[in-house]
Amino acid sequence: MAFTGETAPGVRPAPQATDGFRLNHSMLRVKDPERALGFYSHIFGMRLLRKLDFPELGFSLYFLAQLGPDEQLQVPDEASARTEWTFRQRGILELTHNWGSEDRDDFAYHNGNDEPQGFGHICFSVPDLDAAVAWMDVNGVEFVKRPEQGKMKDVAFVRDPDGYWIELVEAARLGQLGLG
Amino acid sequence: MAFTGETAPGVRPAPQATDGFRLNHSMLRVKDPERALGFYSHIFGMRLLRKLDFPELGFSLYFLAQLGPDEQLQVPDEASARTEWTFRQRGILELTHNWGSEDRDDFAYHNGNDEPQGFGHICFSVPDLDAAVAWMDVNGVEFVKRPEQGKMKDVAFVRDPDGYWIELVEAARLGQLGLG
Repeated sequence: MAFTGETAPGVRPAPQATDGFRLNHSMLRVKDPERALGFYSHIFGMRLLRKLDFPELGFSLYFLAQLGPDEQLQVPDEASARTEWTFRQRGILELTHNWGSEDRDDFAYHNGNDEPQGFGHICFSVPDLDAAVAWMDVNGVEFVKRPEQGKMKDVAFVRDPDGYWIELVEAARLGQLGLG
Repeated sequence: MAFTGETAPGVRPAPQATDGFRLNHSMLRVKDPERALGFYSHIFGMRLLRKLDFPELGFSLYFLAQLGPDEQLQVPDEASARTEWTFRQRGILELTHNWGSEDRDDFAYHNGNDEPQGFGHICFSVPDLDAAVAWMDVNGVEFVKRPEQGKMKDVAFVRDPDGYWIELVEAARLGQLGLG
């Protein structure tokens, strides 16, 4: 039988008007795109799908995603077709660079976990959490919480270069999460 | 030929150590889960995949995604298998409820777009932007920017009940974006 969702106060059935809606991306502002792109491409294996420049508005947008071997074959080579393809996907990360921010010595973006709180984190699913933690260590990535620290075992958090929190999870270890 | 990404300063090739990494979810804190779940399930057609309660820590987590008809058949019915399945996907929205926040009259989360800036928005891809805008209006959803306003045409922003910004895009209209 088809799964239509758990129930909880507030939850309503999905209306027909929402057919085909999908969560495409999350956007984070980054101070220095070279630093952020180096981090997300090397540490997390994300590919730059599209870079869009808006000279009149003074900003650039970078759209990133991980691509498996099969997915690499699906991405259109031609730029405008690739932009469209990007906006049809799930799990895209958009980084916004307001030109000049990288030159402001006293400037940093707010990560949402320090006060005032709001946005929490992005999360990457990894096939092997121990291997991913070792990979972070090899690259000197700063941990907010290692898997063995705190009350939520098997969940790790690292910081990206702007200070945003990134969760690391291995799906196979989390089946019992929240079951007490 | 397989697409391996655009180039830009900072971008490096995806290392083998990152094989299988995927962007699983973004987490937003919400003041009132009933209000937030009503909004995301009804206005955006998201299904509650899992609700995880942590009584000792005083919070609950809600994992949401849109599910097409085929995807509804793939979701495991059994709870722990469904948790694992959730952590293998892309495009999940996690809402965190710190118990009691809904009763604090003077409390609101920070949306990342007011100062201090950081997190920007989440974005839903929709099959028909005009229809999606009409659906927002029928439901009294507040717009930050309608498609015809501002310099970026064909892109709309609405507010969720906590004040977070949500972008709406129709992929087929955006091929020329950033091409000047």
